[in-house]
Amino acid sequence: MKILVTGFEPFGGSTINPSEQVVRLLQDILFSNIELVIKVLPVERIRAGQVLIEAVEETQPQAVVSLGEASGRAVISVERIAVNLMDYRIPDNQGNKVADLPVVVGGPAAYFATLPVRKIFERVTLAGVPAELSLSAGSFLCNQVMYEALHYTAEQGRSIKAGFIHLPSLPEQALRSAKPIPSMGIETALKGVIAALQAVAEDGENPD
Amino acid sequence: MKILVTGFEPFGGSTINPSEQVVRLLQDILFSNIELVIKVLPVERIRAGQVLIEAVEETQPQAVVSLGEASGRAVISVERIAVNLMDYRIPDNQGNKVADLPVVVGGPAAYFATLPVRKIFERVTLAGVPAELSLSAGSFLCNQVMYEALHYTAEQGRSIKAGFIHLPSLPEQALRSAKPIPSMGIETALKGVIAALQAVAEDGENPD
Amino acid sequence: MKILVTGFEPFGGSTINPSEQVVRLLQDILFSNIELVIKVLPVERIRAGQVLIEAVEETQPQAVVSLGEASGRAVISVERIAVNLMDYRIPDNQGNKVADLPVVVGGPAAYFATLPVRKIFERVTLAGVPAELSLSAGSFLCNQVMYEALHYTAEQGRSIKAGFIHLPSLPEQALRSAKPIPSMGIETALKGVIAALQAVAEDGENPD
Amino acid sequence: MKILVTGFEPFGGSTINPSEQVVRLLQDILFSNIELVIKVLPVERIRAGQVLIEAVEETQPQAVVSLGEASGRAVISVERIAVNLMDYRIPDNQGNKVADLPVVVGGPAAYFATLPVRKIFERVTLAGVPAELSLSAGSFLCNQVMYEALHYTAEQGRSIKAGFIHLPSLPEQALRSAKPIPSMGIETALKGVIAALQAVAEDGENPD
Repeated sequence: MKILVTGFEPFGGSTINPSEQVVRLLQDILFSNIELVIKVLPVERIRAGQVLIEAVEETQPQAVVSLGEASGRAVISVERIAVNLMDYRIPDNQGNKVADLPVVVGGPAAYFATLPVRKIFERVTLAGVPAELSLSAGSFLCNQVMYEALHYTAEQGRSIKAGFIHLPSLPEQALRSAKPIPSMGIETALKGVIAALQAVAEDGENPD
Repeated sequence: MKILVTGFEPFGGSTINPSEQVVRLLQDILFSNIELVIKVLPVERIRAGQVLIEAVEETQPQAVVSLGEASGRAVISVERIAVNLMDYRIPDNQGNKVADLPVVVGGPAAYFATLPVRKIFERVTLAGVPAELSLSAGSFLCNQVMYEALHYTAEQGRSIKAGFIHLPSLPEQALRSAKPIPSMGIETALKGVIAALQAVAEDGENPD
Repeated sequence: MKILVTGFEPFGGSTINPSEQVVRLLQDILFSNIELVIKVLPVERIRAGQVLIEAVEETQPQAVVSLGEASGRAVISVERIAVNLMDYRIPDNQGNKVADLPVVVGGPAAYFATLPVRKIFERVTLAGVPAELSLSAGSFLCNQVMYEALHYTAEQGRSIKAGFIHLPSLPEQALRSAKPIPSMGIETALKGVIAALQAVAEDGENPD
Repeated sequence: MKILVTGFEPFGGSTINPSEQVVRLLQDILFSNIELVIKVLPVERIRAGQVLIEAVEETQPQAVVSLGEASGRAVISVERIAVNLMDYRIPDNQGNKVADLPVVVGGPAAYFATLPVRKIFERVTLAGVPAELSLSAGSFLCNQVMYEALHYTAEQGRSIKAGFIHLPSLPEQALRSAKPIPSMGIETALKGVIAALQAVAEDGENPD
């Protein structure tokens, strides 16, 4: 199965992003049943989705698994739903800060992930990595690229599965916080993402 | 410098304890400036302190660094103070659950750690591991062995430095929680403890 | 303006519910610009939505403001979106516990609240009551009645505004928690809800 | 029984302080068994304790109950212990910011509250107000005046009971926080403090 895995570049004053680190580490891993394509997306309102869609059109994957950072969350969050809303608490990397705007004008209020979220959650947990099914991917770039990927595949009538997984901050990011915040080491995050990709691959071979 | 590092066996329904795992991993690490002695303590009201003091008497270390697990905490906690209070929220491993009792009848209300807590905090953070200086080690076994070690060295007039460091739960423990709780991977916890031991060793050579 | 305000009966082992208490207190308040109708909904998978829709049909309000309890939240949550998902962590008051099911088979993935959520948030805050715009009403009865009200008005082509506001637990509920959880006194919650209703009424008179 | 109740003036950029508001409201309440004296303390490193001790000497109370604000805490915290440490995260109202210094040079590491903390906790909870027994009053002015009051009464050999109770932020303070924080309405906080004072008075009449 061919899977496109995306991460994000750093943002919000940080110089690193666990999602970028994980996709770079994934590059060096051989999977017997998965052909991996990776892409690091810019944290920019317009270009993030464009780069993602271009990568989909160019590589023609059967599934898109997007990764991002959720500062303050304690466990891996498998996102169930993307909403048609941009409401940024901080500016993107180009200084854009928008409120109460739709991702796609006239698009539906939300899309459910088409990835097998329950199977992913179970597989990640079985691998020893704490996880949760999440009902909100926020209203920043993470939610936005999830919405855009799902909107694209819905509009095109493609059978490409898409969805989003949030990773906690890395320990080296958490130590810059004034108050203690949770973090997850890169080893644990990588183990969780590998388990998630296995769930996606197995589901592709044996869908319900 | 000879340092006694203690961990605790699992408790409270868990089958693992990050502090036990860290001390077992420390055994296989060679330090040029530290002679390590490790000991795993029972989570038992009476015996925990006894086993610790026996290990001190037997091995005659210059410093005692005790480690324990603080479920729910997000970062490594360098404990500043131990209080003369036992007030257990859960029973110890022998079923003892006590409230509002002193650790040592007639002992002082509290002891400050004699380890260089600020240096430890700085060293752990410099190593890329999130940490905090903590004002409470709780009122269970962790606080108790910290109090007992400090009381022993104060009573004996010994110059042995003593103190306590709390580790977050491990990822494989956090996934059993009904609500998401923070965790820290064993690689990160071990890196933090090694940095703490270096701070203790350097302080022993160059005290303020 | 005629507004239907709903609350929920107690659930999950509690004998009280802040949303029920608030709607009962609202009954005794005279508004010059609002005709209030109140209704307490059962915490039952099938009947909750039925009782709500019946009340709408019977009373023909111009807006429906549903209230519920969000244990663990610290501030009043003005919900932006309802999702087509039932995934109960606890059973409803009839013992039903469902997972991964749609509220309405074949319904859209989500509906945005048609109440003026930003104005409500600002008005509540101006009244001195802490609030937030929330991106998830959960996947229990609160989300469900919000979804059902919005689905009904969308299907009927009615111009009735609808939405949901979550209240923190009451202090007398918070004290039963093993670990400290946030709460909000009934006086503060009531003040917040009154401010929210004023925002709804003013918006009805002067929509953007 | 004569009880001196102290609050603090606002600090840290806030214009109000729940502890000041509570002591001002207490002034207008008649107790059959308590003669109340109130005092608002400055949030100043040197003068806070001085003003407190002067008030004790002037009014000769049988108990001192000091109140303060603990931003971020969700329930009323009955403090068990004061530590001989000043380590300010923010400056006091005169711009002093100190680290790792003792409150009293040569003083003991800590004092346990001499107020009946367990009875206070039980009484507050019985009154319907969420509370906890707390093991740390921090290392700012709240801990400091608690330490100074206990040190003074210990040094003087006086039988005056002393201790500290932390109140959550008020709702009107919580709404200024970037992220939701817990709060407690003044009605609830006042009810809790009245229950605490009753526990102190009853204990004075019927000590164990």
